[in-house]
This record gives sequence, C-alpha cells and structure tokens, in this order.
Amino acid sequence: MKATILYGPRDVRIEDRPDPTIVAPTDAIIRLSASCICGSDLWPYRGANVVKEPAPMGHEYCGIVEEVGSAVRSVRKGQFVIGSFFASDNTCPHCAHGYQTSCQQKTPVVGAQAPLLRVPLADGTLVATQDVPSPDMIPSMLAISDVLGTGWFAADAANVKAGATVVVVGDGAVGLLAVLSAKCMGAERIIAMSRHESRQRLAREYGATDIVTERGDEGAARIKELTNDVGADSVLECVGTQESMWQAIRAARPGGYVSYVGVPHGVQLDGAKLFYTHAHLHGGPAPVRRYLPKLIDLVERGEIDPGKVFDLTLPLEQVAEGYRAMDERRAIKTLLTT
Amino acid sequence: MKATILYGPRDVRIEDRPDPTIVAPTDAIIRLSASCICGSDLWPYRGANVVKEPAPMGHEYCGIVEEVGSAVRSVRKGQFVIGSFFASDNTCPHCAHGYQTSCQQKTPVVGAQAPLLRVPLADGTLVATQDVPSPDMIPSMLAISDVLGTGWFAADAANVKAGATVVVVGDGAVGLLAVLSAKCMGAERIIAMSRHESRQRLAREYGATDIVTERGDEGAARIKELTNDVGADSVLECVGTQESMWQAIRAARPGGYVSYVGVPHGVQLDGAKLFYTHAHLHGGPAPVRRYLPKLIDLVERGEIDPGKVFDLTLPLEQVAEGYRAMDERRAIKTLLTT
Repeated sequence: MKATILYGPRDVRIEDRPDPTIVAPTDAIIRLSASCICGSDLWPYRGANVVKEPAPMGHEYCGIVEEVGSAVRSVRKGQFVIGSFFASDNTCPHCAHGYQTSCQQKTPVVGAQAPLLRVPLADGTLVATQDVPSPDMIPSMLAISDVLGTGWFAADAANVKAGATVVVVGDGAVGLLAVLSAKCMGAERIIAMSRHESRQRLAREYGATDIVTERGDEGAARIKELTNDVGADSVLECVGTQESMWQAIRAARPGGYVSYVGVPHGVQLDGAKLFYTHAHLHGGPAPVRRYLPKLIDLVERGEIDPGKVFDLTLPLEQVAEGYRAMDERRAIKTLLTT
Repeated sequence: MKATILYGPRDVRIEDRPDPTIVAPTDAIIRLSASCICGSDLWPYRGANVVKEPAPMGHEYCGIVEEVGSAVRSVRKGQFVIGSFFASDNTCPHCAHGYQTSCQQKTPVVGAQAPLLRVPLADGTLVATQDVPSPDMIPSMLAISDVLGTGWFAADAANVKAGATVVVVGDGAVGLLAVLSAKCMGAERIIAMSRHESRQRLAREYGATDIVTERGDEGAARIKELTNDVGADSVLECVGTQESMWQAIRAARPGGYVSYVGVPHGVQLDGAKLFYTHAHLHGGPAPVRRYLPKLIDLVERGEIDPGKVFDLTLPLEQVAEGYRAMDERRAIKTLLTT
C-alpha cells in the first residue's frame, strides 16, 4: 500500500509499504474511509520534535473492519469503527477511571495516513457505529477520532457547565471543536481567541459569542474587560506554548478551571505564580475513548457537524501539500481520501 | 502592648507597640484568646523571604471583640470570633465563588502574635461562635483560623471523597490536619508521609492508616506498591518545595487530584511532564473563610480536636523560643498565651 512517511523537517513522502497484518490476536485491521493530518503532526514536521528514523504518520482513523485477531470479541469484519491515537484495554484501573490514554497497556496507533491500519487492543480501543455511515458523514466521524474528542476533553476538563463563561485559546481544529463542545455543554458565553477570519467565522458558527484578537497582556486585559473584571469560569488551552498557557491561566477567574490538551512545548509553570491565581489545572493526552459512544451518537443524530473543520480535501498521494497548507495556515485541517 | 516583631533571619523580638485602633469604619479590634506561630512564619524567620523592615508577625487569631467601627453590622463587642489571614468582603464575585483569599478587596491581617489585633473588613472576615467557648476549646478554635482551614482546603481541593485513597505529603500542622480533614470527608485509606515519630503518632490518631517514611523516588515507589501499582485518588501537598510537589504529583493515579496549599518556594513545573501525569492540580492560599462556619460547628460539637497540633505552649514573652522550637522541629506548633 501507499503510506505517508516523515523523513525529517518538511520532508514527508508517500512510499510503498507492506499491507499491515494481524500481529497479536487482539489486533484488528481497518480499511480507512478517510485519513487526515493533525495539528500535532506539525511539531515533528517543523522539526520541533526530532525524527530519528523515517516515521509512518497519522493517528486519526475510522473505517471498515477488514480482519480481526482470534481474541477479538467486540468488533467484527464489515463494521464501521472509530478509535483513538492510543490503543487501550479499557479494563485496567486507569481506563476504569476514564483515563484510557494512561492505560496500563497503552500503545500508540501509528500509520493512519494510509489506506489500511493495524489497531492493537481492538476490543478496548474501537467503538462500532450502529450502521455504516453515509459518505457525507465520514468527515465528522473522522473528526471524532481525535480533534473533536480532544476539544470535548478540553471542555470537560475545564469543567464547562450550563451558563458558564468560557474562553478558548487557540483557533486550530481542536480549538474550534472545543468551542463546539463548550456550546454542547451549555456554556452561555464563549470567547474565542483568534486572528484568522475564516477560523473566526467557523468559531461563530460553532457557538462563539465573542472574538478576541489580542494576545499576551492585551489579550488577558481584553478578557478581563469582557467579564466585568472577573475572568472566565473555564479556559480551554488548545495550543501548548508558554505564551498560550499563561494567557489561558490569566484569563480564568480565581477558582476558575483551565484545561490544556496540546502537548506542551517549552512550557514551564512557576509554582508561586500559579499558586496565587487559584486556578484549577487539568489536561493531558485526551482520553478520547471515554467520549466515543457519546460523540458518535451526537454525530449520528445530526446534532453536531465537527467535520466542517476539514477545509481542504486531497488525495493521499498529495499528502505533502496537505502538510504545507496546514503549516502555512492556509488550511485548518486536511482530509486525505484513500 | 507587647508585640512580636521580626527584624531579620532568626531575629524575632518582643517590643512595645501602641495598641491597635479603629482606622476604617469597617474595622474591628479583637482581644486575642491565644496566639500562635505558623509554619509559614518560618520562611522569613529562616531568611527564605527577605524582611525589608521590622515586621509585626502573626496571622492566626480568635478572641473577643473589643470594639467595632461604625459600619460593622455582623459582629459586636463581647462576641467570640474567628477570622483568617486575609481579610475579605465576602460579597465580591471571587468571594461568592468561595475564593475569599482572592477577594477584590483582600487585605492581609498582620500582627496577631500580640494581645490585641485590628481586623479590616470585619463583616466579611469574622465569624462569631454561638457562645464564648470554654478555655479548653481555645486551641481548637485557634487552629481553625489557619492550619485546620488550610488542611481542610487541601482535602477539598484534592477532591477527597468517601472511600478514597489519599496521600498527605508533609507532617507539619497543616499536613496533620489535612489527614484529619480527609478522614472527616470519608477517605478510606490515608497514607501520611512522615519521618517523625511524634507526628506519625498524631497522624494515626487523626485517621492515617499507613505511614510512609521514604521520600523522592523511593517514596513514590512505596506509594505505588501500597496502591497496587495504581496511585492515589487524592494527594495533598502541604510543604511547598520542588521535591514535595513532584513527590505529590507522582503519588497520584492518572486522573487523580493533587492539591497544594503551602506557598511554593522554588517550584517549577515542566508542562510536558505534568501533561503526561494526567493530574488535576489545584491550590493557592486557602480560602479559610469559606469553611469557618462548618469547622466552628465541628469543633463546638466536639467532633474534631484540631488543637492537638499545639504541642508547645509558651507565654507571648517567650515567642523567640517558640520560633526556635519549630525551626528545629522540636515542636509541631507553638501556642502563645497572651
């Protein structure tokens, strides 16, 4: 099959690789209905994470089960399934608490920018839909796998409640879907921090009531101004830099909730400074598995349309252009047809 | 009156100072039933915080109202009252959310190691008891003012629930009362980290089920061992150093709750490292005011005896010896009779 391999900074290639096969009896092989590029793929693409050897890319996926190992019980050939970027057994104590991305058996899922994918721990990892969805639902189903699941976790981890005032820092696909998630959870006011017109438009469509274009000190001051000098109840940090993290913490009211869902790069938190903010802080790799049944249901019932974050569709062969478009912020998120 | 003044590292003196008087119409003057020395007083005493000019010491207090300003409505002369180390209006948005130590009008209360004390914002800050308590209840009433209120916040901020497995890092008065608080909230297992026999004894009396004497890597390994390799649901960090903070974070299970209630000194949190722990983090200056009615009630009904943390009682004139005894860990906490 043709697969996407990252060789080094800005060097992403399509190569022939052997089709994946069942390795462990708990594996499943999936024929992907579509694939896509993640904001987090840009870290190694830009050289912020070192690529030691050619790396198969892609960790967001949905599609039809092609084959299952002998121990797999909960999914079967022909079903449409969605999973997350970490395979998990969904039975260990951490999974039982809803932190499947800290599963005692967790295993990264890699190589989803390709037509076929091997998923370990299939029973714990994959959730099947009732029916095979129609083609127009595929982008939304694919979004569930990572960006919606992560945006949803951002809202949940920041304790978004009905009537809350919410700030979302970051206007990537996760930030935009964090807006949608906060809206679904009943937030009354959703302030999106964004400087890009097309992203602002989608943020408003997803439920943002206010847009703040300022950053840093000015951004924090603007949030205070918009909240009667109080600060927000919940702040969802969807970037992962030192600037965005402190912007988020400063936007919260004392006792407010700050979530962070993008892998922090170069973030250092001064304990004493954090202490006096009285912030609640929670984040980490989103345990998307926890939310899959709920999110699949919302998409199936047509209540949400997270697939709108895909504003560029390319055939897999043009994956390199997909990376470039996202790197240059010409695209929010690239969908790859396989 | 005789008042306690800190001149510099390990230089604490008793001096003649004018009696406090009503300055603002919202003030109250209290005749203190007893005073005490706080673990946090040791930071400037040891030189970890610089003392720029001679500083009146003490911020824990309870006693009889001697005089109130013309605007004070909720307390009156002759009542027994307890307050916290920050005066607060108890009406601003931050107070309404229960974060009185972030009150928009917050004012530090200083000079409580003396017979008389001026408390600003008396209506918002002070809570009166039903009756004037008997002398044997004074130590417990005084403990409410700071160390119990802070230990209670530690347990609350770490989301201690019935049946939970809890770890308390730190065996000072706050740590010991955090054990008591966790017990009151229904924790099933309470692991106290302590190396001092007398403190271990009091921890057990307050409800600790296990004592761990190891620290750092060994301490974290021991907690994992005691929790079937899972980690604790709630970890209460009651020290404020880099070592104790990471010890606390590493003792929690993924998705567990870590509170920190001692002012952090030299604490830096690496964002990426914190991210992968999946910890909830919450802390700050304990909003003791939020808990005063509840804690007064528990003490009045004889359900708890937090005053046991005072294992040394000295007349105010010997305050310097009180500091020395705590600095050298000969005493957990010194009560000063005024």
